[in-house]
Amino acid sequence: MKVKSYVKGEWVDEGEEQDLISAVTGEPVAHMLKADLDYKGACEYARQQAGPKLRAMSIHERAFKIKFLAQYLLERKEEYYELSTHTGATRQDSWIDIEGGIGSMFTLSSKSRIELSDLPYHVEGSHERLSREGTFVGQHICVPRHGVAVHINAFNFPVWGMLEKLAPCIISGMPAIIKPSPTGSYLAYKVFKDMLESKQLPECAIQFIAADKPGDLLHHLNSQDFVSFTGSAETGQKLKAHPNIISNNVRFNLEADSLNCSILGCDVTPDMEEFDLFVNEVTEEMTVKTGQKCTAIRRTLVPKNQVKNVIDALKKRLEKTSIGDPAKKETKMGPLASATQAERFKEQVSSLLETTQLIYSNGNGRHEGVSFTGPKVLLCHKPLEVDEVHKVEAFGPMTTLMPYESNEEAIKLANKADGSLVGSLFTADDDIAREITLGCAPYHGRFMVVNRDCADESTGHGSPMPHLVHGGPGHAGGGEELGGARAVIHNMQRVALQGSPTTLKNITQQYIKGAETKEAETHPFQQYFEDLGVGEAKTSDTYTVTEEDIERFADLSGDKFYAHTDPEAAERSLFGEIVAHGYFVLSRAAGLFVHPDEGPVLLNYGLENLRFVAPVAPGDTIQAKLVVKSKKVRQKKAKDKFPFGIVYWDVEVTNKDDELVAEYTILTLIKRREILDMDIFEEDK
Amino acid sequence: MKVKSYVKGEWVDEGEEQDLISAVTGEPVAHMLKADLDYKGACEYARQQAGPKLRAMSIHERAFKIKFLAQYLLERKEEYYELSTHTGATRQDSWIDIEGGIGSMFTLSSKSRIELSDLPYHVEGSHERLSREGTFVGQHICVPRHGVAVHINAFNFPVWGMLEKLAPCIISGMPAIIKPSPTGSYLAYKVFKDMLESKQLPECAIQFIAADKPGDLLHHLNSQDFVSFTGSAETGQKLKAHPNIISNNVRFNLEADSLNCSILGCDVTPDMEEFDLFVNEVTEEMTVKTGQKCTAIRRTLVPKNQVKNVIDALKKRLEKTSIGDPAKKETKMGPLASATQAERFKEQVSSLLETTQLIYSNGNGRHEGVSFTGPKVLLCHKPLEVDEVHKVEAFGPMTTLMPYESNEEAIKLANKADGSLVGSLFTADDDIAREITLGCAPYHGRFMVVNRDCADESTGHGSPMPHLVHGGPGHAGGGEELGGARAVIHNMQRVALQGSPTTLKNITQQYIKGAETKEAETHPFQQYFEDLGVGEAKTSDTYTVTEEDIERFADLSGDKFYAHTDPEAAERSLFGEIVAHGYFVLSRAAGLFVHPDEGPVLLNYGLENLRFVAPVAPGDTIQAKLVVKSKKVRQKKAKDKFPFGIVYWDVEVTNKDDELVAEYTILTLIKRREILDMDIFEEDK
Repeated sequence: MKVKSYVKGEWVDEGEEQDLISAVTGEPVAHMLKADLDYKGACEYARQQAGPKLRAMSIHERAFKIKFLAQYLLERKEEYYELSTHTGATRQDSWIDIEGGIGSMFTLSSKSRIELSDLPYHVEGSHERLSREGTFVGQHICVPRHGVAVHINAFNFPVWGMLEKLAPCIISGMPAIIKPSPTGSYLAYKVFKDMLESKQLPECAIQFIAADKPGDLLHHLNSQDFVSFTGSAETGQKLKAHPNIISNNVRFNLEADSLNCSILGCDVTPDMEEFDLFVNEVTEEMTVKTGQKCTAIRRTLVPKNQVKNVIDALKKRLEKTSIGDPAKKETKMGPLASATQAERFKEQVSSLLETTQLIYSNGNGRHEGVSFTGPKVLLCHKPLEVDEVHKVEAFGPMTTLMPYESNEEAIKLANKADGSLVGSLFTADDDIAREITLGCAPYHGRFMVVNRDCADESTGHGSPMPHLVHGGPGHAGGGEELGGARAVIHNMQRVALQGSPTTLKNITQQYIKGAETKEAETHPFQQYFEDLGVGEAKTSDTYTVTEEDIERFADLSGDKFYAHTDPEAAERSLFGEIVAHGYFVLSRAAGLFVHPDEGPVLLNYGLENLRFVAPVAPGDTIQAKLVVKSKKVRQKKAKDKFPFGIVYWDVEVTNKDDELVAEYTILTLIKRREILDMDIFEEDK
Repeated sequence: MKVKSYVKGEWVDEGEEQDLISAVTGEPVAHMLKADLDYKGACEYARQQAGPKLRAMSIHERAFKIKFLAQYLLERKEEYYELSTHTGATRQDSWIDIEGGIGSMFTLSSKSRIELSDLPYHVEGSHERLSREGTFVGQHICVPRHGVAVHINAFNFPVWGMLEKLAPCIISGMPAIIKPSPTGSYLAYKVFKDMLESKQLPECAIQFIAADKPGDLLHHLNSQDFVSFTGSAETGQKLKAHPNIISNNVRFNLEADSLNCSILGCDVTPDMEEFDLFVNEVTEEMTVKTGQKCTAIRRTLVPKNQVKNVIDALKKRLEKTSIGDPAKKETKMGPLASATQAERFKEQVSSLLETTQLIYSNGNGRHEGVSFTGPKVLLCHKPLEVDEVHKVEAFGPMTTLMPYESNEEAIKLANKADGSLVGSLFTADDDIAREITLGCAPYHGRFMVVNRDCADESTGHGSPMPHLVHGGPGHAGGGEELGGARAVIHNMQRVALQGSPTTLKNITQQYIKGAETKEAETHPFQQYFEDLGVGEAKTSDTYTVTEEDIERFADLSGDKFYAHTDPEAAERSLFGEIVAHGYFVLSRAAGLFVHPDEGPVLLNYGLENLRFVAPVAPGDTIQAKLVVKSKKVRQKKAKDKFPFGIVYWDVEVTNKDDELVAEYTILTLIKRREILDMDIFEEDK
């Protein structure tokens, strides 16, 4: 296999050949063609060719592309598993990388469609009222940037590392230049090639760089571009301080390894489930991916009186770690990713041994080849007095045990790493959980608390979830990725629009309170999804509420709250008189605007932001106004009986003085006339 | 007056004296004492003394402090106005600085209390379901950082610049070290002194540095700290690339001046209101604060065929600009802030004149003193071909006119400044508004569209609003400030918590779906605000829905949608049978849990996130469960009849198979037993 660059829409077939070595056999798996690339041209190509194509789609359309792409890759996963073995990964290791990466695409696609606008940009939050009369308002929107995203990825997760960044980038409307680490790049290359072949994305939307270093790429970036770097703190900081990055204020997201810790709560004794769960987690994090995870547990914090028990239990577990060919079923742990990594790991452990004691180093099985190593447990007796153990990261199957004497000390130790991607705590006591979690929170991007109640379903210390932010302060780089729709917003530019509500509605294509509306000629509930226009309105007839209505409603609902039923008590209330139930106003308003006949409206399935603004007393006359606020394409299978879209309606209920009585947004499913081509796939699980 | 530093809780009375010169008279207004400060000690003092005190308060408590502080300063505003004159500011100029700054505190306080948790940290968004059974979930929270915020402020807004950063910083729970520009520092000093004297904040929460440059301050910052710099791009970039800032990944927010533009739409002719509004805005932005605003209109984009008309109109308006002593009522424009600024402005204009033509330079009135200058209008004939006019900022009363020939060209020109704080457009045509706004959006932090409908209430091109984000990409620094509650979140650390719902509830002190609840002994609606505990629950009796109920509800509400009334049509519907109205389910659930008697519950004033999850058919039995989700202290005046707090309740309605039928959050006002001391102030306007 030849790992080639793909730039400006073409494969680069020339360049210096470099062997890519299997971590298992030490033999070449593939050759990388290191070409002299036109980085400036690659950036311009992305900005000029791909940007406009991606921005012409809505966020939902782009999110669907990512979903379909994920389905395409999932069908080819076995090919990736096969290649992945050469990186030293067992089937379990590869699962995290391959299916974890593809899974992130599904989740980010789905969450983007749930949380973001079905427009090329996202209309964020409600409008901001900036003036007394409401003729001048503000509205935040998040728009695609006119640049290119450069993703410089680490060697340990060739697939996940590429896909978790690419998905939000594409959904945001930005093209990407992907620069994998040479180590394992044959796997990233294979997946990249499949993505191209899937033809789901405009072919100019992604480019691939086969090289040791990204040449003068950073030199050509401008203020609309974005760099996302994952790797060592040292390299990351060098790139972040690149003169061009600084002078153009290029956005830079840095994700560096960190000295993550896991803490055994002082309440836990060896007879408790939480003890086994803890030992299990530490062992897993040491051995999965042969410890080459930025989120692995490098520091194991244990109450002083449990150190011996933990050591014994860890030893017992680690003895069972069969090391060997990752392709074999019985193998628990493969080699490190390369001879270089193995050498580096050795040096780092040596350096740590200057202030720690080696208490375990072995592992069961074959240690052939230079990239193999056994798991190692170090012990630091006075971790509060030693800095190195909180700073020097040995990127392999190891952890340093650190005793602590109080919760306060555990917090101090956890935070002494000066910023981590993740921390975890094993305790059955929620008071301890509260104290330690809140004490550690400012120094962590993620913090997990495990007890017997959640252990079975826990996704583990080491796994960033696409729903949750990934990234930690300080040593961990200070970046933030993932986190559901946040992942997409990170790639975008937030801009505050100001103007009249009508102008802002016309700009954003989303109804903004106070904007002009257009009274619908056909009742909106009798119109198909495609025919409803944002700003289209229905003003209802009026209805005068009677005392009898309130009595009947109290009777029917069973809600006999004194303010609706007891004149004397009501006089003492906030309102000073009998008032109608809020839910009666809501129900009666629906009665005013609902069209009774069969039609495209399938159902009202939800309601948001309801506020009862003023009371309605007997004799008051109410009227409802319904306006199409925004729309989202959404449906189940193409063959479904009811292909539908979601329509959000702004509802205002007023009284005879035209004062607002209640306001809210209702969510309806509306039938569609047609089914879009891209909807031939099943909805996400 | 002696402008002194205040560090480690003490005024520094020693140091080299430096005259602070009045921009108007050229005479000293005050002396600055430049001491040799212990910056390391100042940082440690803030982290150790102030941090824990601020973090012990809830976000709402801190927000109240900011509100009371604002009230305290507002009462003393006339003293600030008096001093402000010496900076060269007219009454109108000072209003922006002084009342604009104090106003930001009110708004940020109020918005924080509306949008953020009444806890020391903010519980952000809903929980994330991470597992099938729901025993393991995620929840984002934003926590105060354990560091100190360093605010390096610009000379042009000594008060606003200090307060708009300080308010969100304190509300977030972080202490601040404030470093004003020496120019005008006497005004910042006076306000700072009053803040200290108000005793609203722990005295260790704020420190003040009287110095030219912040010494080795940046050298002592760590990863929990935060730097917010406003000023020139050059200085900002130098500080941002400081080795310690880079190596510790210290958060750095940069707000630099930018070459903002205003665009006259190609639809606008001199007979239209929008023409006058545009000319007015450009003139105002040139002369207010003598053009020393980072948001001023440096570039005036005009359709080619309107250039002559605009020049004529601008000249006419500018002729009326009376320049002179800002203390005098008739003065429209005062001097620049200092002789240095005046010299710099002259140089910058000269540099721009190499590629532009000077078409106006004058102004009506006295030009005494070195700091005075008249407004200047330059014209660049081929702005697409010249780079300087989009790069060189002359920080004074000037603008460069640039002709354009199409909307596309206007967008290109606007974006040629490579990132601006703000842009604006004057047009009566919303199609033009949409095209230009979306075309410019990625290059702007704020974009305003003005027409006759919103002009009267417009807050203006140059005014950042506390509700909206302030900051632009690229040249403007790439930072983001303000934006309502976002301003507070910017200062915090977001952390993703993972664990069992019960554990996360106990950590966050906010109910998380799936967490353990405790059945209340007294009906929760009969309990006072203070007595209700998060997680306290009320499980209602059951109710079996009948056909007659549905008929009666259809009749009473008037909602005769076929799915509830027409058996044949209902059979063809999504449900296949007659089902109850969603609002009946909602109403009947209320009937199940509402306590009819007078008690602490004042009213249910709203509802959020309602989803009808499954239909309810005749014969189905429903049951409701109400859980205290979160609480917020809130009330009007102390003397009010009904001092109250807000309680959010999680409601789940289930059917006889224990399947979820509907879920939502209701918002209630609940009476309080006691009134807190701090509530003796009126609620915000």
